[in-house]
Amino acid sequence: MTNDRTDGTSDAGVAGFLFDLDGTLVDSVYQHVLSWHDALCAEGIELSVWRIHRRIGMSGGLFTNALLRETDVEMSEERRKRLRDAHAAAYQGRHAALVRGLPGARALLDYLTAKRVPWAIATSGRMESASVTVSKLGLDAQKIPIVTRDQVRYAKPDPDLFLAAAARLSIDVRNSIVVGDSVWDLLAARRAGALGVGLLSGGYGQDELERAGAYRVYEDPKDLLKHLDEVGVRR
Amino acid sequence: MTNDRTDGTSDAGVAGFLFDLDGTLVDSVYQHVLSWHDALCAEGIELSVWRIHRRIGMSGGLFTNALLRETDVEMSEERRKRLRDAHAAAYQGRHAALVRGLPGARALLDYLTAKRVPWAIATSGRMESASVTVSKLGLDAQKIPIVTRDQVRYAKPDPDLFLAAAARLSIDVRNSIVVGDSVWDLLAARRAGALGVGLLSGGYGQDELERAGAYRVYEDPKDLLKHLDEVGVRR
Repeated sequence: MTNDRTDGTSDAGVAGFLFDLDGTLVDSVYQHVLSWHDALCAEGIELSVWRIHRRIGMSGGLFTNALLRETDVEMSEERRKRLRDAHAAAYQGRHAALVRGLPGARALLDYLTAKRVPWAIATSGRMESASVTVSKLGLDAQKIPIVTRDQVRYAKPDPDLFLAAAARLSIDVRNSIVVGDSVWDLLAARRAGALGVGLLSGGYGQDELERAGAYRVYEDPKDLLKHLDEVGVRR
Repeated sequence: MTNDRTDGTSDAGVAGFLFDLDGTLVDSVYQHVLSWHDALCAEGIELSVWRIHRRIGMSGGLFTNALLRETDVEMSEERRKRLRDAHAAAYQGRHAALVRGLPGARALLDYLTAKRVPWAIATSGRMESASVTVSKLGLDAQKIPIVTRDQVRYAKPDPDLFLAAAARLSIDVRNSIVVGDSVWDLLAARRAGALGVGLLSGGYGQDELERAGAYRVYEDPKDLLKHLDEVGVRR
């Protein structure tokens, strides 16, 4: 027996982990939801908060298309930009200060690093906001593998972010675990050919995540860390 | 045939409707969630936002007990009061301004009034905040039947609020429809012997509401208004 595997998996049994960021490693979903609500109110667009929650984690383009469909409002490129800017201003100005890392997030990443299991972050956010968000975990975006919306053509539920993250780690995405809190992460994982693991920490129901293809669902990173053997990481 | 029914139901086929308020008629759940998060942060208690979301709608006492269980922190009566006050301050100061009535909420109540189907509101909130919340629907808390936390011994998931609301309307709770967005509403409905109808507008998953005993689940009050015949209101 040898530890060299021909299928591209590491000693730990999986090629690596590709993490979503907001709602998966950092407890920021509800703050983003209300920041979008603030921005939409400022544009005079009435949309129920739960409907925004159910769309969070999509690419900005698909997100505004989905809003368009649900509200029947005009969505010019100029208005899209105003919405994005108002969301960023509300998030930074009103909501970001109380955003925290999720329980076990940093411990999980540190454990994988110690076990030499490669990991990367793949987020629908842009680098400007993602670097602030990873700082909540005590991490420097310049020093970790992270793929942001600005670096790929299409965001989730397209698979591009996870494909690019696997390429960054030089691992086969088909032997990778994608970890995310939203149905968009899990749909993108399936399109990428990866195994999707869902976390409840973004506020979605277990059933929604399972229906979107989650192989397993855990509460949060701390709960996933406790059950890593279930997803193929050997102790 | 006569319209007089011996089973206490009205002409419309049901005795009446007992509505939860936050998340059911008014789009305020996410703002309450983040207000509790603000309050907990101020007390140095770290609790993930989604866990707060899953407890919203319980009575204040059960809510802080649940927090106690999940965080293992000391919860003196003094600290409970500080938390309640900080929540109220955060909600009024930071979040309430952008709270809106849910789509169809006022139309649904007006339709029931026009059809002479009795309705009341039963909320785990206190009268002080509930009167501000119903004003988002253009209603005056002094002029509508509303039962608040201050008026009963135990709040949801105990049945007291819905029992008191049915008594206020002089209708049989067992022929009533309870409408709520949280599992606590639906559990309380079952304990009261009423038929529970779930709404997705509080941000919970359909599956969670069905498992808690929802007879039917609709998106929001507008969607319920469209399907009133399914719950027994004849056109």
